[in-house]
Amino acid sequence: MNRVVAFGEIMVRLSTERHLRFEQAKTFTVSYGGGEFNVCASLANYGVQAEFVSRLPDNEIGMCAIKEMRRMNVDSKNVIFGGERLGIYYLETGAGPRGSNVVYDRAHSAMATIEKGAVDWKTVLKDATWFHWSGITAAISQSAAEACLEAVKIAHEMGLTVSCDLNYRSKLWQYGKTPSEVMPEILQYSHVILGDIDTAYFMLGLDKVNPNYQDEKSLPSLYTKLFDLCPNLKTVATTLRYSVSASHQRIGGILFDGKKIYQAALKEVTPVIDRVGSGDAFMGGLIYGLLEYKNNNQRALEFAVAACCLKHTIAGDYNLVTLKEVENTVDGDSAGLVSR
Amino acid sequence: MNRVVAFGEIMVRLSTERHLRFEQAKTFTVSYGGGEFNVCASLANYGVQAEFVSRLPDNEIGMCAIKEMRRMNVDSKNVIFGGERLGIYYLETGAGPRGSNVVYDRAHSAMATIEKGAVDWKTVLKDATWFHWSGITAAISQSAAEACLEAVKIAHEMGLTVSCDLNYRSKLWQYGKTPSEVMPEILQYSHVILGDIDTAYFMLGLDKVNPNYQDEKSLPSLYTKLFDLCPNLKTVATTLRYSVSASHQRIGGILFDGKKIYQAALKEVTPVIDRVGSGDAFMGGLIYGLLEYKNNNQRALEFAVAACCLKHTIAGDYNLVTLKEVENTVDGDSAGLVSR
Amino acid sequence: MNRVVAFGEIMVRLSTERHLRFEQAKTFTVSYGGGEFNVCASLANYGVQAEFVSRLPDNEIGMCAIKEMRRMNVDSKNVIFGGERLGIYYLETGAGPRGSNVVYDRAHSAMATIEKGAVDWKTVLKDATWFHWSGITAAISQSAAEACLEAVKIAHEMGLTVSCDLNYRSKLWQYGKTPSEVMPEILQYSHVILGDIDTAYFMLGLDKVNPNYQDEKSLPSLYTKLFDLCPNLKTVATTLRYSVSASHQRIGGILFDGKKIYQAALKEVTPVIDRVGSGDAFMGGLIYGLLEYKNNNQRALEFAVAACCLKHTIAGDYNLVTLKEVENTVDGDSAGLVSR
Amino acid sequence: MNRVVAFGEIMVRLSTERHLRFEQAKTFTVSYGGGEFNVCASLANYGVQAEFVSRLPDNEIGMCAIKEMRRMNVDSKNVIFGGERLGIYYLETGAGPRGSNVVYDRAHSAMATIEKGAVDWKTVLKDATWFHWSGITAAISQSAAEACLEAVKIAHEMGLTVSCDLNYRSKLWQYGKTPSEVMPEILQYSHVILGDIDTAYFMLGLDKVNPNYQDEKSLPSLYTKLFDLCPNLKTVATTLRYSVSASHQRIGGILFDGKKIYQAALKEVTPVIDRVGSGDAFMGGLIYGLLEYKNNNQRALEFAVAACCLKHTIAGDYNLVTLKEVENTVDGDSAGLVSR
Amino acid sequence: MNRVVAFGEIMVRLSTERHLRFEQAKTFTVSYGGGEFNVCASLANYGVQAEFVSRLPDNEIGMCAIKEMRRMNVDSKNVIFGGERLGIYYLETGAGPRGSNVVYDRAHSAMATIEKGAVDWKTVLKDATWFHWSGITAAISQSAAEACLEAVKIAHEMGLTVSCDLNYRSKLWQYGKTPSEVMPEILQYSHVILGDIDTAYFMLGLDKVNPNYQDEKSLPSLYTKLFDLCPNLKTVATTLRYSVSASHQRIGGILFDGKKIYQAALKEVTPVIDRVGSGDAFMGGLIYGLLEYKNNNQRALEFAVAACCLKHTIAGDYNLVTLKEVENTVDGDSAGLVSR
Amino acid sequence: MNRVVAFGEIMVRLSTERHLRFEQAKTFTVSYGGGEFNVCASLANYGVQAEFVSRLPDNEIGMCAIKEMRRMNVDSKNVIFGGERLGIYYLETGAGPRGSNVVYDRAHSAMATIEKGAVDWKTVLKDATWFHWSGITAAISQSAAEACLEAVKIAHEMGLTVSCDLNYRSKLWQYGKTPSEVMPEILQYSHVILGDIDTAYFMLGLDKVNPNYQDEKSLPSLYTKLFDLCPNLKTVATTLRYSVSASHQRIGGILFDGKKIYQAALKEVTPVIDRVGSGDAFMGGLIYGLLEYKNNNQRALEFAVAACCLKHTIAGDYNLVTLKEVENTVDGDSAGLVSR
Repeated sequence: MNRVVAFGEIMVRLSTERHLRFEQAKTFTVSYGGGEFNVCASLANYGVQAEFVSRLPDNEIGMCAIKEMRRMNVDSKNVIFGGERLGIYYLETGAGPRGSNVVYDRAHSAMATIEKGAVDWKTVLKDATWFHWSGITAAISQSAAEACLEAVKIAHEMGLTVSCDLNYRSKLWQYGKTPSEVMPEILQYSHVILGDIDTAYFMLGLDKVNPNYQDEKSLPSLYTKLFDLCPNLKTVATTLRYSVSASHQRIGGILFDGKKIYQAALKEVTPVIDRVGSGDAFMGGLIYGLLEYKNNNQRALEFAVAACCLKHTIAGDYNLVTLKEVENTVDGDSAGLVSR
Repeated sequence: MNRVVAFGEIMVRLSTERHLRFEQAKTFTVSYGGGEFNVCASLANYGVQAEFVSRLPDNEIGMCAIKEMRRMNVDSKNVIFGGERLGIYYLETGAGPRGSNVVYDRAHSAMATIEKGAVDWKTVLKDATWFHWSGITAAISQSAAEACLEAVKIAHEMGLTVSCDLNYRSKLWQYGKTPSEVMPEILQYSHVILGDIDTAYFMLGLDKVNPNYQDEKSLPSLYTKLFDLCPNLKTVATTLRYSVSASHQRIGGILFDGKKIYQAALKEVTPVIDRVGSGDAFMGGLIYGLLEYKNNNQRALEFAVAACCLKHTIAGDYNLVTLKEVENTVDGDSAGLVSR
Repeated sequence: MNRVVAFGEIMVRLSTERHLRFEQAKTFTVSYGGGEFNVCASLANYGVQAEFVSRLPDNEIGMCAIKEMRRMNVDSKNVIFGGERLGIYYLETGAGPRGSNVVYDRAHSAMATIEKGAVDWKTVLKDATWFHWSGITAAISQSAAEACLEAVKIAHEMGLTVSCDLNYRSKLWQYGKTPSEVMPEILQYSHVILGDIDTAYFMLGLDKVNPNYQDEKSLPSLYTKLFDLCPNLKTVATTLRYSVSASHQRIGGILFDGKKIYQAALKEVTPVIDRVGSGDAFMGGLIYGLLEYKNNNQRALEFAVAACCLKHTIAGDYNLVTLKEVENTVDGDSAGLVSR
Repeated sequence: MNRVVAFGEIMVRLSTERHLRFEQAKTFTVSYGGGEFNVCASLANYGVQAEFVSRLPDNEIGMCAIKEMRRMNVDSKNVIFGGERLGIYYLETGAGPRGSNVVYDRAHSAMATIEKGAVDWKTVLKDATWFHWSGITAAISQSAAEACLEAVKIAHEMGLTVSCDLNYRSKLWQYGKTPSEVMPEILQYSHVILGDIDTAYFMLGLDKVNPNYQDEKSLPSLYTKLFDLCPNLKTVATTLRYSVSASHQRIGGILFDGKKIYQAALKEVTPVIDRVGSGDAFMGGLIYGLLEYKNNNQRALEFAVAACCLKHTIAGDYNLVTLKEVENTVDGDSAGLVSR
Repeated sequence: MNRVVAFGEIMVRLSTERHLRFEQAKTFTVSYGGGEFNVCASLANYGVQAEFVSRLPDNEIGMCAIKEMRRMNVDSKNVIFGGERLGIYYLETGAGPRGSNVVYDRAHSAMATIEKGAVDWKTVLKDATWFHWSGITAAISQSAAEACLEAVKIAHEMGLTVSCDLNYRSKLWQYGKTPSEVMPEILQYSHVILGDIDTAYFMLGLDKVNPNYQDEKSLPSLYTKLFDLCPNLKTVATTLRYSVSASHQRIGGILFDGKKIYQAALKEVTPVIDRVGSGDAFMGGLIYGLLEYKNNNQRALEFAVAACCLKHTIAGDYNLVTLKEVENTVDGDSAGLVSR
Repeated sequence: MNRVVAFGEIMVRLSTERHLRFEQAKTFTVSYGGGEFNVCASLANYGVQAEFVSRLPDNEIGMCAIKEMRRMNVDSKNVIFGGERLGIYYLETGAGPRGSNVVYDRAHSAMATIEKGAVDWKTVLKDATWFHWSGITAAISQSAAEACLEAVKIAHEMGLTVSCDLNYRSKLWQYGKTPSEVMPEILQYSHVILGDIDTAYFMLGLDKVNPNYQDEKSLPSLYTKLFDLCPNLKTVATTLRYSVSASHQRIGGILFDGKKIYQAALKEVTPVIDRVGSGDAFMGGLIYGLLEYKNNNQRALEFAVAACCLKHTIAGDYNLVTLKEVENTVDGDSAGLVSR
């Protein structure tokens, strides 16, 4: 049976409702999420055993995050308690011509101050089949990056499939290193990479900077380069995203397995209820697809795209949809009828 | 003066807000509605005398439904009290590629356990000019179907116009009979039928099953068949519905009076605030149109389509719009300006 | 340094949420706004010194309005206290084919009963560079119109630039005079006018009545006429508005400086969160643009259009966007990405 | 069968929640109420036929009030439409040492501008057995006072029992007359009066001013005086109210029928959820008691006191309790157990 | 290590907020709870392994209940899926002189239609040390009572401690049997009983009916009788409850271990936020106390009383307090200071 | 004219509503407050010119705090922008036997990383008459304590009255120094001290630790000691607080001016809506009293006590009451009547 372990940060998410600006909010909707946890939540929803490893402060707010993991059926038994605080991000959801805005307040978090050796990975990963990490953990602090490298190495040695979502965030990487000094080494031990073309180039030390989800034509050459640089790489994929406005997105995907390029048709998503976490939904769908549709990369990719599309309609960080709902979307349900 | 009496079930409606999934909801918005009551509410809004006959539990929740009927100016004086519970339905409103979902919890309701003879229809229908029922009442239980047949027969004998919305619900019809064993007999006494092609065929014992709101071409042959089978039929109509997504619908309508086919142009509806009850809004509009625009079936149909479109923008089961607002929509108001 | 003073009414705004109809509302969202104050709020957001002069009742509700002015950094030091009540308007926000609706309850307000002489304009306007008024103040009462004329005259004499938003409201002008009996005189002393073609004609005593935001072709002849009639006119502009539905607008703009017509390309705005105050946002953007982009009327106009578009995504009367956000929109940001 | 008609004003009530101050409120809870309507609502809840006569503006907000009357089963068929606005009152609910605060915005309301002759009382009161008015209607305007006198005279002539709640409000009576110039004449035709000692003296032209709910000892002499001055008086009663704080009240009552003083024991009420309308709940209970417990003034009074106590636990203007709930409280239920 | 398994029903709880009456509610707060589950939740909060066994419908609403169990760290792995519906109860929270009100809508629930043999108790109870049931399960249907008897017998045979909360509900027991026909047999196999004097007498077939939490003097003779009738009884306890009003309770407790009576001092609880589930909190505290304070029945009882008191301050069915918070209350913390 | 400047930290306050526990909250109510700012807000409400000096992050959340200062009419013109984050505290409001709980997340805030020299105090304090600081600023970091000492020295030199609220918080003081190493030096330059007996002893290096608001008898000897140790001390005061429960407090006060002890009678406060900030309300009232009732220390003290009592009824950190409301409470208003 498949068992996926992810490693990363979970945060308090404080968001305004109904497109209000921060200054208009008398209340913030509070939830708990973060890139790698969101992937676990997706997998648990699809029926895959999922565990999330992180470091949380030993206080009531940390406990709230634990309870949310439990509710989502994501195992939290190896979470470490310590540190000063749970990281926070403030989210203001845009509409039409006004974009969404995230204000990070995640410095000095319990996870940012985790250190190599804090987790007994050999024990944690026993019986696991897949390990997931992302570029965010490498971006929050030197010690978190080191803890991540340690975990990835052990996972690789133990024979797990290792996946990475590159996840470049321009507001992070504040600790004095560039992605290209940190990421390539960790990617050595990764077998599946999700990333757009600019992010990938940038993390590998090349020149582009901003996420670019639309340059389909250059992807094959990027993919070749990634396979050259990452000796264990098996699969690389990219979310294609065409943004009409904050409320209207077109989503597709591309996947390369070292031999062949697979492409999923674009789907319209409008209105967008909440696009934060839609990349994690893609990642969660991709892992599920690669695990379950072993000889059908096309369907694996389409599953990821459908999961990503559905996530845009779900409030909160992670993708509260069932396996059957994603499959129906893959199979062409327009969602136009009420199920009754 | 026109006085319309409808017979059916009113339920507690528990819906999530802002497209939340059931599991995210800390609160459910509560309201009270049901297909046949929704038709009454529409008519009362247009100034027609409307009465709703049903069976409700004699408790505080039943009383809440009564108060809502009063608020809507729908007469409740012949409601019967008894039975165990008020039926419930849970509603989760979709968005874009995610459809809406209804979970019924209406078995064993006061209305489902009503019996033939419970209502003194001769008294109730005195001075009434129109009687409305729907396929839902026939679907919830054997005894409700019998009570419905009884009412329809008496209404027909007393000279009222009898209308029926076929309203097939795949999650109902659990009591051991198929629609084709029950519906044809009741339809004998009906003069106006609203229904899509598949539903109609299925209820008549033919082969199709799912609602199909888009097969314009086959409708004439259906209509002919309905006129053959229902000796008292005068008018049959169908809502045309093209679903782009859960948030975007295109609505039109067709009507046949035994001689001529009338068709209303499609209208775009986006965003969809709440599409549950939009069929009832069509029915309410159609009854109003047939009553008030006696020699103008085209306008009657357009009134029904406009009412249906507007309903998609109203939260809750029934159509809170005024006569003037529907007329303005018929006459082409794009709603683009603020009235001030 | 630029300092703008506006004169007008601020009201309690009671609006329903989530597209509810008035009768569905258990709560009204309360805020405080009004055309001329909204212009001040925009300017303060862009970093311009702004002051609002009005008359408010000396009670707790009046004090709420004062606190909102303070929060927005709009100077309220010359507000006069007196009168019976703060005017109110009820707002129901439409969706798709259902338009928004405003119910005014502003008669007998403190501002409507202001009288000429109540404000010591010579002192108030010392060091100010711009004075703004609108047709609403002229519309609410005879005495308010007189107070407005007094202010405009003094502002003109003191060398300020005087701007006017014609702002015709069919539900006002109840005090026995028509716009054409009142407006032309005040417009004599105005240098910048914002108005659509029909409103302008109507206020000048010509025949058309309803706001018309789409007649681009006739605008040049209107502009010529305005320059003929208003001896001090320097700039006239019009918001172009094509309304697809209550949820979808296309916004552009035209400006004439006596020599040349400037036109800004149409922008799509969907969904519309709140379009009330979007004209004030245009006006606020236009004043900012004329002040800051002195030799670049094209950019001034585009700034006004971008500000107007963004306002449609902001709940409440005034435009809670920063200078940088408007500039980014002018420069083509599609808002499709999350800033993080 | 008893049928009670009341005449007065219904207003929009805008209240803050959870003890927030006005300036903290982002939303106001909206409801519709007013002294005389509240009495009707109480009576309808107890199963008495009740009708409310008033004047409302012919707009969407007036219609909201009508729908609320319907919901409460209070007949609104003789309501007159006209005038400019529905009166408003803002309410901030205190707690402990901080008192509640009402800001009136009811001047120029539809009801304040009603005129004598507007209602065809002879028709309206046919088949009615009781007429209720209060000092508030006499206080809002000269013309409302005249319309009230007209109604009271006719009701008396037609043989109805006429009741009055003196209801002195220091913030009203702004139209140039004192209560003592207006009230005595209307009281001539009244048979039941509810009022505290100071209010009563003040309205009769004597010297005291503020409501005084605690001077039990002076009441007998007041009562004697009232009987002297009001030739048709049959019953006079007073709510006794000892205010520990805004959250804790002690409520009792006294009644005099011309022969004997009846007194009801004090009851503790804490916490107070909403005390506005608790006097109207007393009045409604008193009318019910006098109608139903004809030879038992003691129980009539205790019913009024119990109703008043329960009202303090109900949010909104009127008393949403059933006959059985009031009777249980009269009979000593401490409310300590959950009914299940 | 202690592991407690409870068997019973979990329901949807729909409650009004801020003391609103049912008819005032536009929203219901939704949560999931039930007597026996509430006991599990308490125990899990105190760090005891807890599992809840029940039967739930296989739909989205049943899944919501599962997710809540997970969140509370209560094991749900042996829950059975089937049946038509999740039971519901509507709750209106009283205040002061107005009591709380529960409307049950739990007939025909999945748990009510469970049958003997549905659960493989030998497997489920392996490694468990304690089994808990209550009189509610015996009250909802014949088949649930039989399933309960089956479970209790097996638990007793397997050597677990069996506890029972008598929990008489007058609105249940509708299936044709009286408590005295059903309860005594199941109680044969129980070692710990919680119950007030009247309930206990009634369930044993004696004459009293209503719960009576105040008859301290008669308890010893009741206890003797219980020990006579229940051969395996080790401990019996009673919650003492003196109800000043719906908002003010005084709570104490009595415990008898066959040798000695222990009594805990009364504690004041005001205000009451939510008293539903406070008996379950007592039961959860008692089980914890008996497990952890093995030779200290006095402290076990005081722990139960403190837990019960704290529950009155927690919204929702179960007691969201930590072990340390209960211990602090036992040790006399007045809660008067803010922890910071 | 009096002008008061305070120096300290303003934080985001995230609180649960309706006594919910952290884990139950789907939303946090967000506001902005902090001890020294709260004092400014009180003074501004009483009509005193108030300015708050602090350091805030240069992001949208810092801007929200600025807007709140503006709304409260507290001058923010000398606020410094810089640093990483705005400090946060999470607040869960208790009830009855369950205490309130604060979770601090304020480490690494912009204010904690302020440094000596960052503020040009000579300019800032020009024309000011009073300077206020508190023990919290000394507790958050070494550099903040140094910045505070700098400010106090300059204020004293410039002839301002310097006041200090000792404000011991056991969860702060984490930077390696004890209060007794830091506070005595700053207190040298202070003229007014507010503090309870244990806090005062502890900060002076003596032995007690927890706040003690009830030891009236030992206060005179403490006061003597404070006068000995602080050469510039003129006035020392203590809030007396007797905590019945989280919902019921008794508040009084004592003041010593070097010659005479003044004492204010205890007042009951129940229910408590929000007691956080009630000490700041006392401090704000005391400063006002000392400024305005120069020869009447008794009234100054009673004003402080009344302000403190009223604050317990106000949600949020600072005291939203008017001068008149405090005076009425001093003069004995029981708040039992509605003002209307």
